[in-house]
Amino acid sequence: MRLELQPSLEPNDYPFAHTLRVRFAETDAMGIVHHSRYLPYLEEARVEYLRHLGHPYHELRAEGVELAVLEVFVQYRQPLRFDEQVEVRLRLGSASRTSFQMAYLLTVAGEVRATAVTVHGSVTSAGRPTRLPPWLASLHRPAS
Amino acid sequence: MRLELQPSLEPNDYPFAHTLRVRFAETDAMGIVHHSRYLPYLEEARVEYLRHLGHPYHELRAEGVELAVLEVFVQYRQPLRFDEQVEVRLRLGSASRTSFQMAYLLTVAGEVRATAVTVHGSVTSAGRPTRLPPWLASLHRPAS
Amino acid sequence: MRLELQPSLEPNDYPFAHTLRVRFAETDAMGIVHHSRYLPYLEEARVEYLRHLGHPYHELRAEGVELAVLEVFVQYRQPLRFDEQVEVRLRLGSASRTSFQMAYLLTVAGEVRATAVTVHGSVTSAGRPTRLPPWLASLHRPAS
Amino acid sequence: MRLELQPSLEPNDYPFAHTLRVRFAETDAMGIVHHSRYLPYLEEARVEYLRHLGHPYHELRAEGVELAVLEVFVQYRQPLRFDEQVEVRLRLGSASRTSFQMAYLLTVAGEVRATAVTVHGSVTSAGRPTRLPPWLASLHRPAS
Repeated sequence: MRLELQPSLEPNDYPFAHTLRVRFAETDAMGIVHHSRYLPYLEEARVEYLRHLGHPYHELRAEGVELAVLEVFVQYRQPLRFDEQVEVRLRLGSASRTSFQMAYLLTVAGEVRATAVTVHGSVTSAGRPTRLPPWLASLHRPAS
Repeated sequence: MRLELQPSLEPNDYPFAHTLRVRFAETDAMGIVHHSRYLPYLEEARVEYLRHLGHPYHELRAEGVELAVLEVFVQYRQPLRFDEQVEVRLRLGSASRTSFQMAYLLTVAGEVRATAVTVHGSVTSAGRPTRLPPWLASLHRPAS
Repeated sequence: MRLELQPSLEPNDYPFAHTLRVRFAETDAMGIVHHSRYLPYLEEARVEYLRHLGHPYHELRAEGVELAVLEVFVQYRQPLRFDEQVEVRLRLGSASRTSFQMAYLLTVAGEVRATAVTVHGSVTSAGRPTRLPPWLASLHRPAS
Repeated sequence: MRLELQPSLEPNDYPFAHTLRVRFAETDAMGIVHHSRYLPYLEEARVEYLRHLGHPYHELRAEGVELAVLEVFVQYRQPLRFDEQVEVRLRLGSASRTSFQMAYLLTVAGEVRATAVTVHGSVTSAGRPTRLPPWLASLHRPAS
C-alpha cells in the first residue's frame, strides 16, 4: 500500500473530529509539544472514531483483532503548546484486504498545526495478518 | 508493608548503581525532566539490577511472575536536565512473602537530585498475588 | 511539610472531580496502565481544578510562577485498563507560605483504583521558591 | 525539501550506530513497543551522533539554535519487545540552507525492525528559521 503523502488542509474533507487538550507532561524543553506526543493524539482520535462508528476498539481486541500500526508520517507545521485545545480531524483513506490508511488534520482555533497519515494492518493477537473486519473494509468510499 | 520514607543520601548504602542519560523527550516546558519520567528511570535500574543478579526480568515474566508496582514515593530535590548522566543507586529494603520494597538515590556527578521508594508485589500473569521467587526473598538482609 | 499518607477513600471528601479516558499508549505489556502514567493524570486534574477556580495554570506561568512538584506518593490499588473512564478527585491539603499538598482519589465506575498525594512548591521561572499566590494560599481550609 | 521515503536496509550504508535497550515502560498492551516510542529512540541516536561529531546538542542550544522536527516518517517492519537491544543506525541525507534530513535503520541482532526518516529545521530559540551551523551543513556528502 502506498502512503498518501498529502492530507488535505481543508477541515470539511474530514468526516470526524475529536478534541483534546495538551497536557503539561507532553511539552518539552523547547516549550512546545514534543513531536513524539502527536502519535497518541492520532491514536486517541482513531479510538473515538471507532466508538462513534459503533465498533469500540476494545471489542475488536476482545475478538482477537488488533490494528497494528505499519507506517506513520507526520508533518509538523506549527507547534502545539500547553493547554491548547486541539481538534484532530480524520478520514479513512484507501483500504486493502488486510490494511487501511487514515489521514489527519490537527488544528487549534481553525489554524493548521499538523497533518499526518497512518497505515494500519489487521493482525491476530499473535501478530499474524488477518482480514479487516467487514464493517471496517466497507467504510472506505473513494473520493468521487 | 510500611513504605520506608527516608532513603539514605549516602551512596555507599546502595549495593548497585546504574547510569543513564536524560533524553530530550523527557524534559518539559519548565526546561527540566518531567516528574513522571523518573519512574521509568527507577524501573530501568531495577531491571538492570535483576540482570546483574543473574535473574533477568524477562525470565521472571516467562515463568509467569510479574512484579507489580504497589506504591511509589519520590522526593524531587534538585531538577534533572537534558543530557545529564544520572546515577540511579538502589537497594532492596524489607521483604515479605509476596512483596518487597526498594530504595533509590539519584545523583548527577555526586550531587543528590532525588530519592525514591517503590513497593512491589509478586503476582501471576493474571494479576493474583503469589510468593516471591526464593532467590529474591533471600536477597533481603536487614541493616545490621 | 509532612506528606499526608492516607488520602480518604470517600469520594465526598473531595470537592472537585475530573474525568479522563485511558489511552492505549498508556498501557504496558502487563495489559494495564503503566504506573508512571498516573502522574500526568493527576497533573491534568490539577490543571482543570485551577481552571475551575478561575486561575488557569498558563496565567500563573505568564506571571512567572511555576508550581514545581516536590514529592509524589501513589498507591496502586487496582489496575487501570485501556479505554476506562477514570474519575480523578482531588482536594487541597495543608499549605505553607511557599508550598501546598493535594490528595487524590482515582475511581472507575465508583471502584477505587488508586490514591495519591502530591506536594508542590511555588517557584519563580528561574526555580527559586516564592510565596504562593494569595488566592491559592487562601484556598486551604483545615478539616473541621 | 522532499522526504526520502526509502532508507536503505543495508547497515553499511549508515556511518553511525547507537545501541539502546527497550524499557518496560515503552511497551503497550499488545506486548510490543508502542509506535510512538520509536521517535525518542531516533532522537537519542541523533543526540549521540552530534556528540560523536564533537558538537553536543546542548552546545547548539546554548548558542540559541534548536533543531526543530519538521517531518517524521516511520515504517514498522517487525515489532520491538521489552529488553531487546536495539541498534539505531543513522546517516545524514540531503541538506539545504536551513534544514536537513536523516535516515535510520533499527535492527536487533542484525534483524531489521524499522526504518525511518526525519526532517529537521534550524530555528532560533524563538522558533524562527535560521541557517544551519556550518559544520552541520558541511557534513552532507551526496552519495557518489
